[in-house]
Amino acid sequence: MRTQVAIIGAGPAGLLLGHLLRAEGIDCVIVERQAAAYVEARIRAGVLERTTTDLLHRLGIDARLNAEGLPHHGFALADGERQIRIDIAALTGSSVTVYGQTEVTRDLIAAAPERGLPIVWEASGVAIHDADSAAPFLTWGDGERLDCDFIAGCDGFHGPSRAAIPAGIGKTFEHAYPFGWLGILADVPPCDDELVYANHDHGFALASMRSPTRSRYYIQVPGDARLEDWPDDRLWDELAIRLGPAGQGIVRGPALDKSIAPLRSFVGEPMRHGRLFLAGDCAHVVPPTGAKGLNLAASDVAYLSEALAGHYARADESGLHDYSRRALARVWKAERFSWQLTKLMHRFPGDGAFERRMQLAELDYIAGSTAAQTAIAENYVGLPL
Amino acid sequence: MRTQVAIIGAGPAGLLLGHLLRAEGIDCVIVERQAAAYVEARIRAGVLERTTTDLLHRLGIDARLNAEGLPHHGFALADGERQIRIDIAALTGSSVTVYGQTEVTRDLIAAAPERGLPIVWEASGVAIHDADSAAPFLTWGDGERLDCDFIAGCDGFHGPSRAAIPAGIGKTFEHAYPFGWLGILADVPPCDDELVYANHDHGFALASMRSPTRSRYYIQVPGDARLEDWPDDRLWDELAIRLGPAGQGIVRGPALDKSIAPLRSFVGEPMRHGRLFLAGDCAHVVPPTGAKGLNLAASDVAYLSEALAGHYARADESGLHDYSRRALARVWKAERFSWQLTKLMHRFPGDGAFERRMQLAELDYIAGSTAAQTAIAENYVGLPL
Repeated sequence: MRTQVAIIGAGPAGLLLGHLLRAEGIDCVIVERQAAAYVEARIRAGVLERTTTDLLHRLGIDARLNAEGLPHHGFALADGERQIRIDIAALTGSSVTVYGQTEVTRDLIAAAPERGLPIVWEASGVAIHDADSAAPFLTWGDGERLDCDFIAGCDGFHGPSRAAIPAGIGKTFEHAYPFGWLGILADVPPCDDELVYANHDHGFALASMRSPTRSRYYIQVPGDARLEDWPDDRLWDELAIRLGPAGQGIVRGPALDKSIAPLRSFVGEPMRHGRLFLAGDCAHVVPPTGAKGLNLAASDVAYLSEALAGHYARADESGLHDYSRRALARVWKAERFSWQLTKLMHRFPGDGAFERRMQLAELDYIAGSTAAQTAIAENYVGLPL
Repeated sequence: MRTQVAIIGAGPAGLLLGHLLRAEGIDCVIVERQAAAYVEARIRAGVLERTTTDLLHRLGIDARLNAEGLPHHGFALADGERQIRIDIAALTGSSVTVYGQTEVTRDLIAAAPERGLPIVWEASGVAIHDADSAAPFLTWGDGERLDCDFIAGCDGFHGPSRAAIPAGIGKTFEHAYPFGWLGILADVPPCDDELVYANHDHGFALASMRSPTRSRYYIQVPGDARLEDWPDDRLWDELAIRLGPAGQGIVRGPALDKSIAPLRSFVGEPMRHGRLFLAGDCAHVVPPTGAKGLNLAASDVAYLSEALAGHYARADESGLHDYSRRALARVWKAERFSWQLTKLMHRFPGDGAFERRMQLAELDYIAGSTAAQTAIAENYVGLPL
């Protein structure tokens, strides 16, 4: 089998890239380790930047997004007592859209056949070959082989693409946080119309949603916390405490999903090795605070699809040459924002009374400063591509 | 001896407070441990906020300030290569004034006799008595005693006022930084018209000045650094490296003063115990990054003089009642700014490659964001009283 661009991974990065390339008339094939049903059921992020929704609008894969996506014009930072509303629409003229990653994935998968975007599901043991040659190829399963001009690695932190960059080429940067997020998904109305990020004495909590009838909540838990220590009632009780005033509106319900995720910051440089280009989580990971992960994957593939279109349509290699640098410039800014917001809103085990007061003083300063609110808002809606 | 307000300490806080009270017709006496010559020779801060210079203008103790103070409309943040100018005048409509604390002190001391502000110099062993009674008094030396209505503690971190707050009343908050500042003062023209704060791979450096012919430079050194390890040449060499482009303009000269100061954040709450009111360094210490120390002392005594004037002129006790809360609200915001700027601009021993990139990413973000620059500028010129 032969194609122009072989894409590893049918998550949002790979699916979006595939559709963007098909819209430019470029042939590509997505090779995915899991089954379609598994990919469609994964519960992940839920806040889309304008840069991300713009891509979906441009592709015309936006019927459900337009019907069901919830425009959000603000969100709140809370300190357990007070809520500080960040009016992102007034401060930036832009907004974000609440629409689950699960839904984005489903829409992109559903639109694939009609647009000539083949997806190979359940491809086990995908391996990358000759990435730094002019004739790279993939193999998987029982002797399957896909020859291509370029490989796009969209296979996440644990996929083969990141591992295919030889040790000694480039650098990696990593930061682990000494806590995780315990999340619950439930078919109950959200406690607030907007997202609420709270830094309570007990630790961080987030009130989020996927729709007017489906809520998504998180609390900060120690790095060694176990799910069995958090029966639903304990989790709901703790949310009600940490969210302060917003917590009073919580409607409890059975957990559709409950899980603990670690928090990590990671960046690998460069995002290219020969004809292998990395995009999304395989190149960089952000802590979920601020919802930048999916949106960074979208901006990566926006740059990459543009670069590949330049190559095929005009033999213009500058986009491919600059891809890593362009993508990383935006990645580092989002890493910074996610890191800062994580540090502002979580309790850190080593911190004492002074550091706690610094968090509260920063929230107090933000409450009174249009400049500080604007700086947060412009990062939250997404810095320009 | 009897007065209305006994002021301990003839640093900028005590001197400013004394003049502000005299301007309201309130009697006061300043009691200072050191000799006048010693106090006048102390080399400290050099950047005055508008809130501070406004006090000097209001007092009419501003002839030399007007003639010799250098208005600064901006400053630079540097990363060793690039300089990012923060145009504080354009961003905030305000500015700061470079005029040494030494000069402020001299002007305030010189104006004391004509305004009926007595200063007792070389008062050894000043002790506070009955601060929480209606009849507090000070003693010092060989049986000297000053009875008063109120005591203003303006005697710095190591003075008796802070120690007079009984253990168990209130709280203290403290943060020590694992490095110090090695400073040099020299009669050479500054390398740049404006201040340059640099975060180089080697560590922090600051190019500052006291006048067009007197420069003040600092570099970050390890907490255990010794002066004898830093001969002038080594210090000038290091400044030239760390300051990047600005360092090329350095003119070397013999050190008028060279010293190492530790960096500390400290806040004691409340800033009042009975009839003892604390102001300046005895109540709070900031690291010197951002030059908030002297300016916080000035805002403290602005609040305190207003409160005492209310008490004496109108029997209005609300100012005294609210003093600690009002002063602390501004103190915590300045503590936050000084802490953040310190963290942004210094190398921390425990930090790795990721944390270094976070600093560079933040500088890169600031370089491109008017909102982020405004947030820095509004803190730098001083938040409103």
